[in-house]
Amino acid sequence: MSIFKKIFTKSRSQEDGIFFEAIQKILGFPPKELNHYHKAFTHRSSGKTDSNGNPISYERLEFLGDAMLSSVIAAHLFNEVPHGDEGYLTKMRSKIVSREHLNELGKDLDLIRFVDSKVPVQHFGENIHGNIFESLIGAIYLDKGYPFCERFIQKKVIIPYVDIPRLEGKVISYKSLIIEWCQKEKRIFHYDIFEDNAIDGQRLFGVKLSIDEKVVAKARATSKKKAEEKASQRAYFAFQEKMNKK
Amino acid sequence: MSIFKKIFTKSRSQEDGIFFEAIQKILGFPPKELNHYHKAFTHRSSGKTDSNGNPISYERLEFLGDAMLSSVIAAHLFNEVPHGDEGYLTKMRSKIVSREHLNELGKDLDLIRFVDSKVPVQHFGENIHGNIFESLIGAIYLDKGYPFCERFIQKKVIIPYVDIPRLEGKVISYKSLIIEWCQKEKRIFHYDIFEDNAIDGQRLFGVKLSIDEKVVAKARATSKKKAEEKASQRAYFAFQEKMNKK
Repeated sequence: MSIFKKIFTKSRSQEDGIFFEAIQKILGFPPKELNHYHKAFTHRSSGKTDSNGNPISYERLEFLGDAMLSSVIAAHLFNEVPHGDEGYLTKMRSKIVSREHLNELGKDLDLIRFVDSKVPVQHFGENIHGNIFESLIGAIYLDKGYPFCERFIQKKVIIPYVDIPRLEGKVISYKSLIIEWCQKEKRIFHYDIFEDNAIDGQRLFGVKLSIDEKVVAKARATSKKKAEEKASQRAYFAFQEKMNKK
Repeated sequence: MSIFKKIFTKSRSQEDGIFFEAIQKILGFPPKELNHYHKAFTHRSSGKTDSNGNPISYERLEFLGDAMLSSVIAAHLFNEVPHGDEGYLTKMRSKIVSREHLNELGKDLDLIRFVDSKVPVQHFGENIHGNIFESLIGAIYLDKGYPFCERFIQKKVIIPYVDIPRLEGKVISYKSLIIEWCQKEKRIFHYDIFEDNAIDGQRLFGVKLSIDEKVVAKARATSKKKAEEKASQRAYFAFQEKMNKK
């Protein structure tokens, strides 16, 4: 093996090592076949082809991931809302898998850093985030099968985001719920900004919510209002039982 | 236990025994929890409710089954057609899970015989057949999990019906393929009606296709033309290798 080949091989495997670690961190379990994940982030502009000459693009995996996501969310809603009829279940699922929501999920995981494209990523629209979130799910399905897909969706979509009262429109603002409860219970609360950054031209606020001088939740978002709402929601879920009892 | 209760219990379990056998025959594997399948065929007009008072209707299971069917078909197409892009895969899937096609699948299994309804089944439209085909898939998912759903869909949808060249519109008529091949190969062929019935006002034709005086395929359909096409398709799949070699 020539020294050049050796260097190339080493740097390639190092690169794969970094990618493996990053993917494992996102998934919460080790990937088996890294190739699926490479495909999940390959934009058609890269001009890559598979061994049979078929062009590689994350769009095929996006189709697959979209189907898996829909079925996992369908099963979750079916089990969680026994009183919901078909129309209700369909509506709730559309809200969960809305383009806007998927974009948010993709952004939270910062999936765009993996995209392999000849087009600069800044030139893509907002939907790239949701699209590659779906293609990642497709890759998990191919790599590890349906149960791991379920596990990933449970962890990244259902637990942190699927909030049925909110989706039903019954809860408009978690901040107002928190304030109401604190006033009724005569608790002292305040929201404080602990972070105010700009990363790549995107401003990011960190807000913490304290109740009786104890920090109960923290959150980051692109506006102060959003970060407050996110922190309130976290506090609400942490104290749900307590708050509903009163 | 009173004698009345004993009789009731026995007749109930006998009834369940018959239902169990029928479902097992359709599924190709034994059901675990029969209750899911009862729900899959319960129309809302039956007025039945679950132990929490929620009305029972197959429509919830239909929602679930539809999602499972979509994801199994998506995975099949993804694997079978590596050159197909997202648009192609989406289009092919819509053809496979079209209302018309699902109705045909439900009718083939005669699922309507199981429907529990206060409305006479004759009053339902055509779509009842496809709807309860989907709700049956939903019941399989709940009862036995995703892999059994896949197995059932493979056996009842993919193997007998998912014919990619046909879906792509490349094959217009299997009858013309058969005729062409027979003429080229100097084989004698004929289509004969072996059955001409009317069941519940619905005419049904049975057609057999013979090649060199040997019956190679049979099919039944609501018109002579359809039955001939179905028999030709069956013959085509049986002889595919032979026919493509020539």
